[in-house]
Amino acid sequence: MLTEPGLVTRSERVDAWQVRASMPVEYEIRVCSDAFAPGSTALLGPAAPASGRHRRFVVVDAHVLTLHGDRIRAYFEHHRVDYELHAVRVDETVKSLETAAGIVRALDAFGIDRRREPIIVIGGGVLMDIVGLVANLYRRGTPVVRVPTTLIGLVDAGVGVKTGVNFNGHKNRLGTYFASSLTLLDRSFLATVDRRHIANGLAEILKMALIKDARLFDLLEEYGPRLLEEKFQGSTPRLDDAASEVVQRAIHGMLEELQPNLWEAKLERVVDYGHTFSPTVEMHALPALLHGEAVCVDMALTTVLAWRRGLVDTARRDRVLAVMRALELPSWNRLLTCELLADALADTVRHRDGAQRLPLPVGIGEAVFVNDVTREELAVAVDDLRRLGSEREPARV
Amino acid sequence: MLTEPGLVTRSERVDAWQVRASMPVEYEIRVCSDAFAPGSTALLGPAAPASGRHRRFVVVDAHVLTLHGDRIRAYFEHHRVDYELHAVRVDETVKSLETAAGIVRALDAFGIDRRREPIIVIGGGVLMDIVGLVANLYRRGTPVVRVPTTLIGLVDAGVGVKTGVNFNGHKNRLGTYFASSLTLLDRSFLATVDRRHIANGLAEILKMALIKDARLFDLLEEYGPRLLEEKFQGSTPRLDDAASEVVQRAIHGMLEELQPNLWEAKLERVVDYGHTFSPTVEMHALPALLHGEAVCVDMALTTVLAWRRGLVDTARRDRVLAVMRALELPSWNRLLTCELLADALADTVRHRDGAQRLPLPVGIGEAVFVNDVTREELAVAVDDLRRLGSEREPARV
Ligand SMILES: NC(=O)c1ccc[n+]([C@@H]2O[C@H](COP(=O)([O-])OP(=O)(O)OC[C@H]3O[C@@H](n4cnc5c(N)ncnc54)[C@H](O)[C@@H]3O)[C@@H](O)[C@H]2O)c1
Ligand SMILES: NC(=O)c1ccc[n+]([C@@H]2O[C@H](COP(=O)([O-])OP(=O)(O)OC[C@H]3O[C@@H](n4cnc5c(N)ncnc54)[C@H](O)[C@@H]3O)[C@@H](O)[C@H]2O)c1
Repeated sequence: MLTEPGLVTRSERVDAWQVRASMPVEYEIRVCSDAFAPGSTALLGPAAPASGRHRRFVVVDAHVLTLHGDRIRAYFEHHRVDYELHAVRVDETVKSLETAAGIVRALDAFGIDRRREPIIVIGGGVLMDIVGLVANLYRRGTPVVRVPTTLIGLVDAGVGVKTGVNFNGHKNRLGTYFASSLTLLDRSFLATVDRRHIANGLAEILKMALIKDARLFDLLEEYGPRLLEEKFQGSTPRLDDAASEVVQRAIHGMLEELQPNLWEAKLERVVDYGHTFSPTVEMHALPALLHGEAVCVDMALTTVLAWRRGLVDTARRDRVLAVMRALELPSWNRLLTCELLADALADTVRHRDGAQRLPLPVGIGEAVFVNDVTREELAVAVDDLRRLGSEREPARV
Repeated sequence: MLTEPGLVTRSERVDAWQVRASMPVEYEIRVCSDAFAPGSTALLGPAAPASGRHRRFVVVDAHVLTLHGDRIRAYFEHHRVDYELHAVRVDETVKSLETAAGIVRALDAFGIDRRREPIIVIGGGVLMDIVGLVANLYRRGTPVVRVPTTLIGLVDAGVGVKTGVNFNGHKNRLGTYFASSLTLLDRSFLATVDRRHIANGLAEILKMALIKDARLFDLLEEYGPRLLEEKFQGSTPRLDDAASEVVQRAIHGMLEELQPNLWEAKLERVVDYGHTFSPTVEMHALPALLHGEAVCVDMALTTVLAWRRGLVDTARRDRVLAVMRALELPSWNRLLTCELLADALADTVRHRDGAQRLPLPVGIGEAVFVNDVTREELAVAVDDLRRLGSEREPARV
């Protein structure tokens, strides 16, 4: 694809080169019932190294280490791995370049063979995003294996290839696209996640249901509250099947959308549903609203808007709002004013290269993109939503 | 490529997904006689924006700004660009995450439309590596246009896709692969580069000549010293042709090697010639040796080693050493001991996944990979090289 070299006289000489190449990306997401069962080799690979001893640098959410440390340590000791558990106290404020740099320093001190000793990260979306960035940067790319421990981690942050840290007051301002080699999905970690963070993850699952998976919606309608209650632990065979199917459908739907658009070149993304107004709402409400909660408010608003447009009938609209309530998710926030929403939309238009590209639900399980939502329409939707009795904000907000 | 979803019962359910995708990369490298000529549109693209006014964030080497600032400012003013020149005082010690963060802060303050307003970087390898990293990280990828101002920048750092900063005492410990959209090669910047840095760049050109381009070697033999003297400025039509052809052959050769191996998946790379022992030599000699100088010492040693193996005849060996001298490059360093070289080789073997994969010249203009260089052979090569009168280190070292 390089132009042939012209060599001798000026007129014959090459003055420009076009370089073209294609980077193959491949990664695996695997469900397992216990990533740290002594018999599991998923984290270490099938083959023992020539030295006989595996080495692993493990970054782990400090809170997860407190709750699940025994099982994690026992696993590495059982396999006689030369390992370091690097604990990081996690919240959104430590999602920074400084935290990333601290992890790199620890990694340097431990020393790894970057072709044979993948970094392991055990934690929620915050830690996976940071460690994904570290892995991308460390010697221009070091493999990483992810073990998500939150519901958002299992169905969203652990599924795609985005990494990032916050910077200069902006969320995920610095980041990359970098595929981890493997994500191990182990629902047993969810047992210790607090109820509100489970609901938070359910919001992203509900998103997938609304825009592309009617059966997933049915499952949420039927089992959602009990899954929330028992934190996806499968306390009965029926609930275990439901928990498993809900997680798998959510991931499958996500991957169907992500795989052809891994680097987000295409700006019309159904998975952006619920993410048109929510960034602004979330930012203004901080720290009152979790991400999934803000997304749910956005979905409630756009469901009503779609209903006004005749895209969703009244029965379905009410089922959607009822499921939100049953999942203990807010469908209203006092920040919902026509002004704020218009600002939010303008901001999103800037991010989507000049057009709204707003996904709206069609019935339940399908979506359409629109570019012509008006300020007046937003005002009506806000009034509708308030009138629909959704103004009861949950007590905690 | 996603496995079909299994939905209802455990046995039917999908338990793993393999995600496969391919990221297309395309970029251009273009020769121009004056990147900042008022008539040139290369830096701004052919079309004016809807607003009528371009906006550009420009990162520039502070030293280059002092020397070439008038021309650069005049260009942006002529085109009525709303621009910011962000000057960075550059040397290897500021090639850091902190410098990168400072650039991001300035970028945030200026504000850009990341789809329409590429970052511009004007400087040597250090600044291009830093700003390449910034561009990769900023909102997960912002286009960048590079204008290299050193010879290393023109023929090496500005040609590939590697970005990076030093960290924790390690060179380029953090970095990525990220293609800039365009590199503009403008030799006129070299007029102000000091003589030693021109020679430094000539070392990388000599590398390309030795392993894959006999005609480039002939050109260096015939014109090298004069190109060094006149700093590639083309003071006569003949020298202008020579300068132009030397730069273009060096780049073309580099791209032929890079394009099929942009992410360095393949570990046998002829462009690693001169880079087997030099990292260790460079590190121990710091700051006495520039990178290209250390590479040249490595090439002198391996030329002699290849000669002992019968791969290079005596006449060619002496021509190579003579060209090194004529280009004012060192072919000897007092650090060349058998011990240090054995350590250096062991280190390189670790980086090349357990094998030497050492490119050796075959005659002039071809190369072969070997995996069986012994300590004894290194000792002999060191003695040979010393005996060949190369122990005269340049006075400055
Ligand atoms: N990369 C992506 O594609 C992507 C997608 C969605 C979200 N995200 C990012 O993920 C982050 C949100 O993720 P999150 O909700 O997992 O946040 P989080 O990582 O902060 O986890 C939430 C809280 O739960 C705790 N925790 C984690 N696992 C636990 C467990 N098993 N038991 C008890 N407590 C546990 C954590 O310590 C933390 O306090 C955001 O920063 C968001 O930007 C990224
Ligand atoms: N990314 C890659 O593929 C790649 C390849 C080779 C080298 N590099 C990196 O490049 C760096 C070395 O590059 P370099 O030699 O250009 O170093 P550099 O950028 O430090 O420039 C050398 C010196 O020249 C000055 N300078 C730059 N342009 C000038 C001009 N036109 N006139 C006068 N002075 C000028 C600079 O201020 C600096 O003092 C190293 O950090 C190396 O790791 C990267």
